Amino acid sequence: MKQSNRFFCGIDFGGTAAKIGIVDEKGNLTATERVEISAGDGYDDIFGEVAKKIRSLCGKLGVSLEAIGIGSPGFIDRSEGRVLQGSENLPVFKNRSLVKNLSDDFALPVFADNDANCAAAGELKFGVGAGYESFVMITLGAGVGGALVLEGRVFRGTRGLAGEIGHICLDPQGPFCTCGSRGCFEQYASASAIERSYLEKCGKRATGPVGPTGAEPVTAEVVFQRAREGDGCAIEAVRETAQHIARVFGNLVNVFNPEACIIGGGISAAGEELLEPVTQYIADFAWPLPLSGVKIHTAALQNEAGILGAAAQCLERLDL
Amino acid sequence: MKQSNRFFCGIDFGGTAAKIGIVDEKGNLTATERVEISAGDGYDDIFGEVAKKIRSLCGKLGVSLEAIGIGSPGFIDRSEGRVLQGSENLPVFKNRSLVKNLSDDFALPVFADNDANCAAAGELKFGVGAGYESFVMITLGAGVGGALVLEGRVFRGTRGLAGEIGHICLDPQGPFCTCGSRGCFEQYASASAIERSYLEKCGKRATGPVGPTGAEPVTAEVVFQRAREGDGCAIEAVRETAQHIARVFGNLVNVFNPEACIIGGGISAAGEELLEPVTQYIADFAWPLPLSGVKIHTAALQNEAGILGAAAQCLERLDL
Repeated sequence: MKQSNRFFCGIDFGGTAAKIGIVDEKGNLTATERVEISAGDGYDDIFGEVAKKIRSLCGKLGVSLEAIGIGSPGFIDRSEGRVLQGSENLPVFKNRSLVKNLSDDFALPVFADNDANCAAAGELKFGVGAGYESFVMITLGAGVGGALVLEGRVFRGTRGLAGEIGHICLDPQGPFCTCGSRGCFEQYASASAIERSYLEKCGKRATGPVGPTGAEPVTAEVVFQRAREGDGCAIEAVRETAQHIARVFGNLVNVFNPEACIIGGGISAAGEELLEPVTQYIADFAWPLPLSGVKIHTAALQNEAGILGAAAQCLERLDL
Repeated sequence: MKQSNRFFCGIDFGGTAAKIGIVDEKGNLTATERVEISAGDGYDDIFGEVAKKIRSLCGKLGVSLEAIGIGSPGFIDRSEGRVLQGSENLPVFKNRSLVKNLSDDFALPVFADNDANCAAAGELKFGVGAGYESFVMITLGAGVGGALVLEGRVFRGTRGLAGEIGHICLDPQGPFCTCGSRGCFEQYASASAIERSYLEKCGKRATGPVGPTGAEPVTAEVVFQRAREGDGCAIEAVRETAQHIARVFGNLVNVFNPEACIIGGGISAAGEELLEPVTQYIADFAWPLPLSGVKIHTAALQNEAGILGAAAQCLERLDL
């Protein structure tokens, strides 16, 4: 790996840990560290520990940073990097700026954005989004996140709150969502939604050796695996998930006329298994004209997508 | 009316006529003309006639134009102003540039865009959109159009095809739409959808002196009128329409984080009758945080909105 000259720090906050990495301008992740976060930890403690690890990583590698990028769950205020809402797993961050401490500490540009926007920045700078001026991204995992890249930038909206694709209403009589609305896309395409859909089908049909009585716990990954093995209930659960994704992509193709749609998050590891039916069904929902030429991808960044995306936002915001 | 120094021509193409107006930079419409379009008319004939009327208007007013703006139904290619699709009422325009003839003829900047994008430009420059950096606009009439204003500009997407909000799918098992998909927003919020919704309710309930047996034809305008008069079926038809509008606005508030939502088109003349329930229901679909501060408006430009919007796009594109 040829070393380049510019280095950025990416910090990926989750409920139980901050993952920290040093990333060069080509997207090479050269070293990582981890700060465990416990329920009682204070804001300053966490950022003090993070700063220490960043210094130790830079010292070890002998590099200086150009900027620090932070990705976090929740609504992040565009101007101050403040966590406005949605960080239930990191309650200590609520209404606090994610950038202030590190910015004072390192005298560097520090940026913060929600994790789906970071994922989009990651694909734009280092992944399948490179070369596109515009794309729609969804991240499928425990929840469903989303982001828009328009005219070569992550589109953040008036206050930085844009991209909540997971809360497009698919059915106003559908299941209640964490956001308080009903029938949100998240209720049909998150990992637990895929698991639930599969288990419901198994429960009614009692087909095969699989289902809730199986020895292994049924995760979304297992559902995709069983679909590959020919389990009818799993095939149908995957097909329905793909239809919901295709519907949301189709709607957004009509509204944005983008060049591509990208599926990220843990579930995107399913690859062709998901890509093929989504590509098939999207024609049911999009106008042929804006759809023509639109490419559907799964994300290129899988492991460490969080760190890479957090770092990529530095390049995106600094126009590098 | 104080005359200003800069004048623009707006041309609003419909199926049977081109409406032409001279508009100043403040949005004052100083004079209008009309070119009737018959089925057999050729492309050059139509534009020849239009050019003649523009010259006569300018001569009469003693003004010189800075630019010409054209609004037309259909998908308009962003770079060449070519009508790609959706101009069924003006088949002679299919695959032809709307800007070439007038641009050669007048040696002026000539712009073309679809009528919903023009409506958004009109509100942005001369209407309730002035002062906003971002808003979502829908135009409710025979069809349902849409447009996005982002960062102070009409957002046109990769090829100029963005904004097809009327074709967001509300129900994949819903009625077939002209676009080939099912359950599009247009099928629930166009003038004929409102009429149909009302007549269906009347047919089943046979309430009051109104309904399909009434003397006057039931237009959307009549439905709103009857709702004001207390007709239960009309009240319900208006309420359901408002819920569909609120759902689409709520989804787009989540995705774009805009400052405002604007209802235009003929049906926006209903004013408070529509605004009040839409404002009420939108909270069912949007996150409270991006929704907070979002203003819901009906369009300020009503009569001649087509000409004014077509002209306004000149100011928008020329950064005036």
